[in-house]
Amino acid sequence: MDDLFFMKMALDLAENGRGFTSPNPMVGAVVVKDGKVVGKGYHAAAGKAHAEINAIDNAKMDAKGAVLYVTLEPCNHFGKTPPCTEKIIKAGIRRVVSAMKDPNPDVKGGGAEYLRNKGIEVEFGVCESEAKRQNEVFIKYVEQKRPFVIVKCASTLDGRIATKTGDSKWVTCEESRQFVHRLRHFSDAVMVGIDTVKRDDPKLTARIEGSKCLDPARVILDSRLSISEDAILLQQHSDSDTIIVISDSVSDEALLQKKRRLETKGIKFIESPTKGNLIDLEPLMNILGSMEITSLLIEGGSRVISSAFSAGIVDKIFFFFAPKILGGNGVPICSGPGPALMSGCIPVKEVAINRFGNDILIEGYI
Amino acid sequence: MDDLFFMKMALDLAENGRGFTSPNPMVGAVVVKDGKVVGKGYHAAAGKAHAEINAIDNAKMDAKGAVLYVTLEPCNHFGKTPPCTEKIIKAGIRRVVSAMKDPNPDVKGGGAEYLRNKGIEVEFGVCESEAKRQNEVFIKYVEQKRPFVIVKCASTLDGRIATKTGDSKWVTCEESRQFVHRLRHFSDAVMVGIDTVKRDDPKLTARIEGSKCLDPARVILDSRLSISEDAILLQQHSDSDTIIVISDSVSDEALLQKKRRLETKGIKFIESPTKGNLIDLEPLMNILGSMEITSLLIEGGSRVISSAFSAGIVDKIFFFFAPKILGGNGVPICSGPGPALMSGCIPVKEVAINRFGNDILIEGYI
Repeated sequence: MDDLFFMKMALDLAENGRGFTSPNPMVGAVVVKDGKVVGKGYHAAAGKAHAEINAIDNAKMDAKGAVLYVTLEPCNHFGKTPPCTEKIIKAGIRRVVSAMKDPNPDVKGGGAEYLRNKGIEVEFGVCESEAKRQNEVFIKYVEQKRPFVIVKCASTLDGRIATKTGDSKWVTCEESRQFVHRLRHFSDAVMVGIDTVKRDDPKLTARIEGSKCLDPARVILDSRLSISEDAILLQQHSDSDTIIVISDSVSDEALLQKKRRLETKGIKFIESPTKGNLIDLEPLMNILGSMEITSLLIEGGSRVISSAFSAGIVDKIFFFFAPKILGGNGVPICSGPGPALMSGCIPVKEVAINRFGNDILIEGYI
Repeated sequence: MDDLFFMKMALDLAENGRGFTSPNPMVGAVVVKDGKVVGKGYHAAAGKAHAEINAIDNAKMDAKGAVLYVTLEPCNHFGKTPPCTEKIIKAGIRRVVSAMKDPNPDVKGGGAEYLRNKGIEVEFGVCESEAKRQNEVFIKYVEQKRPFVIVKCASTLDGRIATKTGDSKWVTCEESRQFVHRLRHFSDAVMVGIDTVKRDDPKLTARIEGSKCLDPARVILDSRLSISEDAILLQQHSDSDTIIVISDSVSDEALLQKKRRLETKGIKFIESPTKGNLIDLEPLMNILGSMEITSLLIEGGSRVISSAFSAGIVDKIFFFFAPKILGGNGVPICSGPGPALMSGCIPVKEVAINRFGNDILIEGYI
């Protein structure tokens, strides 16, 4: 009962790091002595102190003989910071309760074994499923070295993301769009197809009023480099990269010159295999993974969303439905070959429903 | 507080009549004496006793000096049964609490005025919005003499009601489909387009396991009478009619012969104006209304749903979403011209969300 209470507190603390810790996990820690919280900490950003260190420092002398609740197994290796296990031992922590083991297959033994050998009691499994959910991005990335992929779309109740003329401003309400900016902040990269760039000329930055946030990298699928050099995406200032994915078979001299001009402006390029004239998303995920992009938010359009599902790269969906009906032809959520039978559909699991203003958000896992 | 409690009880009683009372309203009544319920009743079916009569009969001698809670203003005219006002006076009821006034514009003064003249206290407005919601079908019908129109559809999360080959068995789960049978039972008629008949060869009856229910009339939009004479809809036995709506300009002799053959089998026909080769749904609603069809459940397909929205005849939607993604081309919820701009969408109000198994039902009003 107490373990549960303090671990939930640690999970809440960990949330403060969301969007800032990549490629590290979010981690929260609480130091408890005689049933009282004496220290709290979380991992605020990659390169900064780990949660355990912050919590123990916060507890000061009270850490001696205390219990440490931490949402992830403490590290036992030198990364950008010294190992947390040493800090735990020196502080005199007597028991460590951890929600889950380090999922990194490269970490052998981990911190638990080391701590146990030093006589510290170590337990796992309190709020394990919540902890795994919280760090789903990190877990997939360390296991597969590929980004956790979210597909986000915004449609009318009859499944249209734009009218037949391409108008999509706006499908959803202000509250939903604000949440999308948070999703962008939480993601290492967002990805759209060239059609979306041409139609909407989007910024794809994270803009959250009154709150610090990080821009995601912006990945544009543009196999034949047909983007306008005037596109807002290519002009704006951002701490994160704009990356254009072109076909690995582009050889036209005019296009190569365009590429060089854009490179001079700081635009990055990926040359990637294609499949039926479209960028093949399956191998692209390995390339993005190698660039330390741990999470990717796909924002459309129809062809890209369809390709993502058929390539089997999608982990999670965020489908926003606005309470309105287009009532006729328009741009569908997915456009591509599609299966012949309903039994060929992709099941969505663990469906959750949220409301943003009058909009409905349906979340789920693939 | 007590008024609210007893009126909610009366509303719950009224629900027992759902699907059986058309063209009458659902009505529930409770007789309360000294704070105790001494009688309960509801209107069970058209032609049977009104709720007030049943409740007063149930209360027997206790009705004297009691309060009558009733979800609709008591009637003051001879219909299929004698006026309830006389029964109320004779029973010695001292106070009548009614949720709402009789919405029928043809009823002048109603029962309240008559009862007040006889010295009985009459009040309105307790649970009025719930009562109006419960009898939304009746209210629209008495006011406009046109059916209350519900559009029901079942789609994947990416808005597809069938695959590109027309396969739609099944989009939704058993629980959702059971609820659709209840919707059919609640409706005087269901309506589909000829494409749906050809593709699915549906029964369109109400089949609810272990429960008595009424089949709706089945209305098929088939302007050029292209239905197969082998269609299940034309063979089955049902207490309710199968009605084919054809163009009022059908003159081809072979078609007229086909029509006569079907009429011999008991199939009914409506000859209706068309608009761009499709049945014009706007005037059709007046025809259906004149046939005492107070509620119409439109079950598809895409073209009919689209026509219904563009004709402005829809009152309510039931959109089922199954937790699955088709991922590509398929049959959309609506197919028709559609507006050029998102601002041309039809807003959906008072949205409510329900779950049936793993499916999501989004309800709302137009």
